Amino acid sequence: MIVSGLPKRNIRDYRHIAGDEIVEKILSIADELKGHSITHVNSTPFGGGVAELLYSIVPLLNSIGIKTIWEVIEASREFFSITKKIHNALQGAEVCLSDNEKQLYLDINRVNAEKQLRLNTDIIIVHDPQPLALRKFLNDDHKWVWRCHIDLSSPHRSMLKFISELLKGYDASIYHMEEYIHPDIPTPKKFTIPPSIDPLNDKNRELTYSEIVKILSKFDVDPEKPIIVQVARFDPWKDPIGAIDTYRLVKNRIPNVQLLLIANMAYDDPEGWIYLEKAIRHAGEDKNIYFLTNLIGVGPLEVNAFQRAANVAIQLSIKEGFGLAVAEALWKKTPVVARPSGGIKMQVIDGLTGYLVRSVGEAANKIIYLLKNPNTGRKLGENGHKLVKKNFIVTRHIENYIEMLKNLFNV
Amino acid sequence: MIVSGLPKRNIRDYRHIAGDEIVEKILSIADELKGHSITHVNSTPFGGGVAELLYSIVPLLNSIGIKTIWEVIEASREFFSITKKIHNALQGAEVCLSDNEKQLYLDINRVNAEKQLRLNTDIIIVHDPQPLALRKFLNDDHKWVWRCHIDLSSPHRSMLKFISELLKGYDASIYHMEEYIHPDIPTPKKFTIPPSIDPLNDKNRELTYSEIVKILSKFDVDPEKPIIVQVARFDPWKDPIGAIDTYRLVKNRIPNVQLLLIANMAYDDPEGWIYLEKAIRHAGEDKNIYFLTNLIGVGPLEVNAFQRAANVAIQLSIKEGFGLAVAEALWKKTPVVARPSGGIKMQVIDGLTGYLVRSVGEAANKIIYLLKNPNTGRKLGENGHKLVKKNFIVTRHIENYIEMLKNLFNV
Repeated sequence: MIVSGLPKRNIRDYRHIAGDEIVEKILSIADELKGHSITHVNSTPFGGGVAELLYSIVPLLNSIGIKTIWEVIEASREFFSITKKIHNALQGAEVCLSDNEKQLYLDINRVNAEKQLRLNTDIIIVHDPQPLALRKFLNDDHKWVWRCHIDLSSPHRSMLKFISELLKGYDASIYHMEEYIHPDIPTPKKFTIPPSIDPLNDKNRELTYSEIVKILSKFDVDPEKPIIVQVARFDPWKDPIGAIDTYRLVKNRIPNVQLLLIANMAYDDPEGWIYLEKAIRHAGEDKNIYFLTNLIGVGPLEVNAFQRAANVAIQLSIKEGFGLAVAEALWKKTPVVARPSGGIKMQVIDGLTGYLVRSVGEAANKIIYLLKNPNTGRKLGENGHKLVKKNFIVTRHIENYIEMLKNLFNV
Repeated sequence: MIVSGLPKRNIRDYRHIAGDEIVEKILSIADELKGHSITHVNSTPFGGGVAELLYSIVPLLNSIGIKTIWEVIEASREFFSITKKIHNALQGAEVCLSDNEKQLYLDINRVNAEKQLRLNTDIIIVHDPQPLALRKFLNDDHKWVWRCHIDLSSPHRSMLKFISELLKGYDASIYHMEEYIHPDIPTPKKFTIPPSIDPLNDKNRELTYSEIVKILSKFDVDPEKPIIVQVARFDPWKDPIGAIDTYRLVKNRIPNVQLLLIANMAYDDPEGWIYLEKAIRHAGEDKNIYFLTNLIGVGPLEVNAFQRAANVAIQLSIKEGFGLAVAEALWKKTPVVARPSGGIKMQVIDGLTGYLVRSVGEAANKIIYLLKNPNTGRKLGENGHKLVKKNFIVTRHIENYIEMLKNLFNV
C-alpha cells in the first residue's frame, strides 16, 4: 500500500531553522542526483518512530526533486507477533523462531514482493526486520538498503544468522550509531545516520504561551508549579517506576512538584497494559502524578505543550533504541536528566545539555538542583537546543540520505 | 453489512436446560409462523450487550424455521458521538443536538436505508437509537419494531420529542421492563421483553474445576482464598470505587479476601479510561484487587471462570440498563449482593437469590455474612440459578419473540 496524503513540506521552509547554507548545499547535491528515485518500505503508516520519520522525510525528499514513494507491507497479526520475536532477539533476547514461523514470515514477504508492492525505483530502503525478506524474492538491479532502527550490537546468534542470510542481496545497511553495528552483517557498505526530529511538525513546532496553558489546563496540569516530564512507553526498559520514585524524592524537598508520564498505548500490546497498571498503582492517589496517553486525547500537539511547559525532562531508560524524546525535549530548551543508555549519550552531554545519572537518587538530586537554580536549567536548555539544531533535525537527515545516494551511485 | 459466521445453535440443544415442554411449545408456535422472516438491525457486530444477544438469538430463530438476518449499519466515529448524546439524553442527561448533528444523524440513516442495507423481510427489528431513523427513509409495508435497550422512564424532553417523531412509522416497540416505557412513545403496540443469557455460550457454559483453576492461575488469582467479583464497565454509574471500599471493609474481617473487577474496555471511550485509572489509583498496590480486562486477555471464557470461582458477586450499580451480569453470576450459582437499580430488582430477590443493599457498609456486612456462612451462599446461589433458568435464559427470549410475531401478524 502506498502511503498518500502526507503533509506538504519543502526544504526551503527550514531556511530559518537550519540556515541558508545547509539548505543550499542540500539543493545543490540534490541537483546532481536528479532523476534518481527512492522507495521506503516499512510495516505501518502510523504509530511508532519509523512512521514518524517517514512522515517528514518522504515529502522533503520529493521537495528537492528526488522522487520518493512510501510503501507499507500488508500482513496479519500473526506475522507481527513473529517479527516482534525477531526484534527482541536482535536486541539480545533468547528467542528463536520455529520452522513454521520462519516460513510464514517468508511467505508474507514473498506475497508482498510479488503481488502487493510496486518496487521500481533506483533505490529501495527497507526499514527494520518486517520487510527485510522482500529482497530475497526480487531479482532486480536496484540498489537495496536496509535501515536498522535497532541496537544490533549484542544480538541472539541464531537470529543474527537468519537475518544475515536475508541481507545477502543488499548493497548497504544504515544504523543509528556506530556502536549498534554488528561486524557479521554482510552488506558491502554500512552507514551511520542518527534519526531526527522535525521542528515543523505538531510535536515540535513553536507554541504560544496561551496555547500551552490551554492544553495544560485541559488536563488539569498547573503551569505555575514545577513540572517533570518523561515521554516513554510503559515498559520495564523505560523504568516509569523509577521515574515515580525519583519524583517522590524530589517532592520531599519541593512539595508542589508535578510528574507527567506520557505515552502512546498500542492496543495489541498486553505487556504495555500490565506495566501501565503497575505504574498507576505505584502512583496511587497522588494527583500530582499524571498519566497522559492517547486514550484520553494526548497527541503530538499535547506532547509538545507538556515538553515546553516542563522545567526538567527525564529519560530513565535502561535501554534505548535512540531516545529521540530527549532531542524533542532539548529542542524545546528543556534540560534533560537521563541514564546514559544508547543514543541518549549523544544528546545529553553531562553538564552541558543536562545531566547523566546512574540512580534514582542521583536523578532526584540533579532535578532538585535544576528546580532551585532555574538559570542553570535555562542555560542547559539553550545548549540542548543548539546541539539538536546542529545534529538531530530533519535537514541533517536529508543531507545524510543524499550523501549516501551519491556514494551508492558514485555521483 | 450482513453479519455472517454466527455460531451454530439449535433450539433442540436447550432441551436439557429449558425442558422439553418449552422447546416443544416454541417449535409448535414457530410452525404456525413458517414463511415469516425477520431482520435485526443494530450498530455493531461485536462489543456490547446487543451484539451479544443477537449472537444467540439470530441462529436460534433460524433453527426454528424463521428466516432471520442480522444487518449492521455503517457509520463514522462522528455519527457515534452523536448517537451517544442521544443515548445519554434518553437516560435523562441534559444534552441537546445541534441542527448539524441532527442532519448528520439523519443523513447516515438515509444512506444506510437507500444504499447499504437489504431490508426486505416481513419484520424489521431496529435496536437502540442508532438505526432508528431508517424507517423514515423506507416507505414499505413491512412491520417495523423498535427494540429499546435503554431506561426511557425519565428522558430529556427535547430528545424524547425527536425520537418520537422518528417512531411514527413503527408498529411496535419493546422494552426490558414495564417501568422503562414512556407514555409518550407513539407506537401502537408496546411489549416488555427482558434480555437473556445464553447458557451454551463461552460466558455461561459449564466449566470443569480444572478449567477454572487453570484460568485463575493464569491471572494469579488464588482459588483457595475467598473471591468477590464485579463485572461492570469502569464508569461512575457502576461504582467500582464503591466496590473497592466494600472490599476493604470486608478485608478488615476476612484479610485474605480477593476482589476481581472485570470489564471490557472500548478504545473510543476516553471516560472509560479516566475512570479505570481512578479505580486503579484507588486500589493502589493492593495485589488482592485485580483489574481484569480484554487488554490483558480476559474474554467471555475467562469471565465465566471468574464468576464460577467467586464466593459472592456484587453489582453496586447506581443505574443499570438491565444488569445482565447479575443473571450471569446467578446462573453459575454465585449469590449476588447488589444495589436495587433497574433490572437488578428482577434478579436479586432479597434473601432468596442474594441481598439488596443501600450502602457500601451494608454490602460489606452481607458479604461477610455470606463468606462466614457458605451454606447460606450455596442456597441463595441455587435459588438464583432456578430464577434465571425460569426467567432469563435465551429460550424464554425466543418464546417472547415468536409470541410477539403472532400478535403482530394476528396468527
